Amino acid sequence: MLYLVGLGLADETDITVKGLEVVKRAERVYLEAYTSILLVSKEKLEAFYGRPVIEADRELVETGSDEILAGADKANIAFLVVGDPFGATTHTDLVLRAREMGIESKVIPNASIMSGIGCTGLQLYNFGQTVSMVFFTENWKPSSYYDRVKENVQLGLHTLVLLDIKVKEQSYENMARGRRIFEPPRYMTVAQCASQMLETEEERKEGVFGPDSLAVGAARVGGPDQKLVVGTLKELSEVDMGPPLHSLVLLGRKAHDLERDYIREFAVDKATFDASWKKGYGATS
Amino acid sequence: MLYLVGLGLADETDITVKGLEVVKRAERVYLEAYTSILLVSKEKLEAFYGRPVIEADRELVETGSDEILAGADKANIAFLVVGDPFGATTHTDLVLRAREMGIESKVIPNASIMSGIGCTGLQLYNFGQTVSMVFFTENWKPSSYYDRVKENVQLGLHTLVLLDIKVKEQSYENMARGRRIFEPPRYMTVAQCASQMLETEEERKEGVFGPDSLAVGAARVGGPDQKLVVGTLKELSEVDMGPPLHSLVLLGRKAHDLERDYIREFAVDKATFDASWKKGYGATS
Repeated sequence: MLYLVGLGLADETDITVKGLEVVKRAERVYLEAYTSILLVSKEKLEAFYGRPVIEADRELVETGSDEILAGADKANIAFLVVGDPFGATTHTDLVLRAREMGIESKVIPNASIMSGIGCTGLQLYNFGQTVSMVFFTENWKPSSYYDRVKENVQLGLHTLVLLDIKVKEQSYENMARGRRIFEPPRYMTVAQCASQMLETEEERKEGVFGPDSLAVGAARVGGPDQKLVVGTLKELSEVDMGPPLHSLVLLGRKAHDLERDYIREFAVDKATFDASWKKGYGATS
Repeated sequence: MLYLVGLGLADETDITVKGLEVVKRAERVYLEAYTSILLVSKEKLEAFYGRPVIEADRELVETGSDEILAGADKANIAFLVVGDPFGATTHTDLVLRAREMGIESKVIPNASIMSGIGCTGLQLYNFGQTVSMVFFTENWKPSSYYDRVKENVQLGLHTLVLLDIKVKEQSYENMARGRRIFEPPRYMTVAQCASQMLETEEERKEGVFGPDSLAVGAARVGGPDQKLVVGTLKELSEVDMGPPLHSLVLLGRKAHDLERDYIREFAVDKATFDASWKKGYGATS
């Protein structure tokens, strides 16, 4: 049996009681370690589980899945995923491969950022499609996300923006020379995301959002030092929210009063918040 | 401190290790018991926690929140919510009330149906706004959900439909006479939901969906007997998916091949599935 076990969002104690039982019994335990991270180290997980954990990078999961699945027809293999196994990054391909090999699989759900973002007090009902923001480079500033945000904005809905993480990336030179030397991990911040959004708007000029648009920055959701900051994109582009992981929600025009009452507490500046709110939010649907 | 603790979706072992610690230490433990249910009884929870649990009905939460919060400035109070505390039903009003009273609160996230629905293999990125379906009566068949589904359909997105549950409802007569006698609980099935959707389409005639539209029925997500069934709305209106809770996803036109490969396994009839897919799905975005 292949068990896909969600680890939740913050630390080793966010695993469910059911998930922990699976990990303790499994023959091998893999940790998916390239699409998200917990706020604690692999060593801390190993100490908590009382057993070794094999780090599974993108290469292993995408091209070495048969190695992960080896023997899973007879023994239990646990594949740990930060958040929920079918949350922000789905692992359907691994399950499909298991299915082809006649191996059963079971999912142990857990909190995902896709629902954990409810901690902002914004109603999950009022979110449109989720988008991802990648690190812009000098020559590559993809703006396809902007079209999807536009669709949400036109409907007055909130947009969850998931921020890029770069783990085990190689420099162009090291890749070309076949050197397995990796760059230090990078995690996009709320400030970087807000700046890139404003950069896209500058370029596309369709008025989907602007410096006065309200957004919520969320850092380390579910952790002991979870932090929420509410402000205009201009304000958020200058905010320091501390260590990763960060996410951002662009507020939809149909946000209602209960949502306002909840998030106002976290405003960088209550005066600019009130002014921006009055100008563009709280429209009835 | 007020702790809002998510219980996850299925049984007593879906609580997180962190959540269980909070429950064991709290002075009083409430269970929100009117917007969703676990698949196990309150007694089973009490046995697992080794302590009594107070059932909190709508009345207590909405008008008696001060009773729940009493003493929470000094002691720890745990408020248990099926799924995630800020998932399908948010409990922001309780947190706001606590804030007014100078009481801190903390959320222990868990799986919510809003992300757990990823178990269908449909990518959460491709979902639009979530809607709720209430039980229709002879004279009350609200169709405001239809407008929101229409918005999702026009964008080619999936729609999660959350199904009504009726717990501790009074008959009109008992309510009028002030008798605290409650009707047996009712949980909407996938078949009822699909039928009501077709009824709305019959009435509104805007072609948002029809008998051939593909949808996924999900029952007891996260439970040992989780069941997924894929079919046209016509097929699903006749399907028996067993005990509650049920949810339904109306498939968006932009569903892609990996999603198709995953869900086809659960088709009521692979021939009608392939025919419906070919007619209307897999459009590139």
